[in-house]
This record gives sequence, structure tokens and C-alpha cells, in this order.
Amino acid sequence: MVHKVQLRTSKHDQMIDITDQVRSIITQNEIAEGIALVYCPHTTAAITINENADPDVVHDMLMTLNKVYPWTCPDYRHGEGNSAAHLKASTIGCSQLIPITNGNLLLGTWQGIYFCEFDGPRQRSFYLKLQKD
Amino acid sequence: MVHKVQLRTSKHDQMIDITDQVRSIITQNEIAEGIALVYCPHTTAAITINENADPDVVHDMLMTLNKVYPWTCPDYRHGEGNSAAHLKASTIGCSQLIPITNGNLLLGTWQGIYFCEFDGPRQRSFYLKLQKD
Amino acid sequence: MVHKVQLRTSKHDQMIDITDQVRSIITQNEIAEGIALVYCPHTTAAITINENADPDVVHDMLMTLNKVYPWTCPDYRHGEGNSAAHLKASTIGCSQLIPITNGNLLLGTWQGIYFCEFDGPRQRSFYLKLQKD
Repeated sequence: MVHKVQLRTSKHDQMIDITDQVRSIITQNEIAEGIALVYCPHTTAAITINENADPDVVHDMLMTLNKVYPWTCPDYRHGEGNSAAHLKASTIGCSQLIPITNGNLLLGTWQGIYFCEFDGPRQRSFYLKLQKD
Repeated sequence: MVHKVQLRTSKHDQMIDITDQVRSIITQNEIAEGIALVYCPHTTAAITINENADPDVVHDMLMTLNKVYPWTCPDYRHGEGNSAAHLKASTIGCSQLIPITNGNLLLGTWQGIYFCEFDGPRQRSFYLKLQKD
Repeated sequence: MVHKVQLRTSKHDQMIDITDQVRSIITQNEIAEGIALVYCPHTTAAITINENADPDVVHDMLMTLNKVYPWTCPDYRHGEGNSAAHLKASTIGCSQLIPITNGNLLLGTWQGIYFCEFDGPRQRSFYLKLQKD
């Protein structure tokens, strides 16, 4: 059971909360107990789980990642010029795995699932693989 | 099969070895072959797998993460003041997945599972989801 | 179903594309639908998924990780002197989970699976755990 979800990012660096989309697919498929694998098939984007309330957290995360992995650097060799995005993708990770109990994601109170764009704007997608116990 | 384990952290930054607790739940549940998902429901804490022998590794890791993600920064906007902890949480990751074979975690010789506190001390918890083959 | 694959790294820092080895084991085991867990049992190595085409991406990633986590630092305490490798291991992560559909890994067009060496050259291994739906 693999579901593909399309999304359009609108900024160069962006974190888009996809929790509701993931929840909705779990409900439609009537998964009571199991696991949800959210998988990003891109190499300059990622999936993470973090604070769902204050958008300033997202601001501070994207800003700081830009300091740790600067966009331009005289030593970069990759001709496409987006090595920083590849670095962020491997640092944040291309998937997240979340337990499902009682038909819902076992997220903490303040946790949301984010699609992280590091070289946008672009047409993107993610996969949701659901496993029933 | 989801188990919730409570723990109390005692420092602002801390890595607590939870391998024995995870092992003990696997034994109690008589899982011979499968996978163990260790999941952290907090946004300023994380789960990682790293060196279980020399505590200086933990010291060096926490110290260096504090340099990469400084606690104070004039550009941070998040009012709670713990953006660095959110950054570390997404860098380290909120879960780890380990194969189970012959009733035990398939960890390497030097690998231990750590609950990582980045904004303590606090009352915390983690989930352990076990899947039998 | 856990498979152990041995490999020999040849540099201090290196990313070795293991996608074909993973694919081949999936084919041999005739897994049509499921998930593949690629797991690294070492604490100074990691598994990531990133660009499979231009080797300059790998160059830029390894070079930049060396800047973020410098090999020498007067404050490191760990006697073995490889704290930077432990930091990279926890940053990149010790496993990756990939959906399998129609008998193949559901990787994006530009995605390859990499074994990341951060303290080589050494004899290393990784595990591949396959789960059928």
C-alpha cells in the first residue's frame, strides 16, 4: 500500500506541514495499528518531524541550516550549484517512520510532519507507505 | 504492540543509554525476529545510535552540536529561545529502527541506543513499537 | 530475513554506492511489495540516500561535513581521536528505510543508497532486513 502525494513548493527553502494529508490517507485506509513511512524521492528535499505550533521555529531552522551549509563556497565542485541542498537532505533525512495506534499517528502533542524543500520552488512529491500490524 | 517508557533527564544536554530498557521489553514480549522502532514524541529531544563504551564520545558530541547550533543567536525569532534544540532534534532524528534477530537487537558491538535531551532537565518519554516477522 | 554484506572502504572519508547490491538481494528473494531496511552496525560510519549521478556531490558533501565537524579540536576528550566520525554518524544516521514496489526499490530517479565511511579505510559491513507485505 503505497500512496503518492504531489505538492508544489513556493520558496527556495521551505518546510510544509503535511501531517493532515498523512492522517487523511491513514483514515481512508482504515489502518488501526501499524506504521507509516513517509518517504521523499528527491535528493534536495527531506522529511522531518518538528514543532507544529510556532512558525518561528521553522524560520530559525531554515536560517540556521543556511549558515551551517552555506549556498556558495569556493570549494564546491558540483556544477549545478546546489550542494548545500544535498547536504541538508542527508542531514535531515529522506524519510520518517511513525507508529499508528487507534487509527491515528502516534505523534507527540507538538509534533508535525514536514516536507522540507531546500532547492525550490519546484513540483515535488512524497510517498506514504502504510503497514498494518 | 507499542510500549511507552518514561524517563527523567537531569541536564540541559544529555545522552541517556536506553539499550537495556529496549532489550528488556523485547525479551518480555518474546520477539524472535522482527524490527524495533524507538520513537521520541518530543521536538527538542531525539534518538540516536552511537558508541556505548567511552563516555567522552557523548561529551564530544554534545559539545560540538552546541558549537554547530549555538543556543543564542541574534537572528533567532522563536520566543521560547530553544531553537537550537529543535535544530538538533531534526539533525539527529526522532526515531531509530533496529532489526531483531534471535530474540535480540542486531546492534554492532559498540552500538548503544541513546535518548538525546537537548532542552532539559525534563520529564520525557519514548515509544517502542515492536513488529514480529 | 536479514542479509549481511561485507565491504572494504579505501579512504578516510568515502561514500560507496550500494544500491545495486541491495537491489540484487531483493531480486534474489523475490520480494514484490514490502520495505527494505539498510542498517549500519558501526559507530563511525552511516547510511544515506543521495544523488547517484555526479560524483562531485559526494565530494562536496564529505568536504563540507569535515568543516562542520573538524577532525581535530582542542576540546575533544575522546582518546581515539575520531569524535568527528561519531558526530557524522549520528548526523547522517545509521539506517535508511525504502519502500519496495513491483519488486524494486521505490527510489527517486536521482537517488542512490550510500554506505558512508567516516574513519577508514576499514573492513565494514551492513545489514539488509527485508519485510514482505
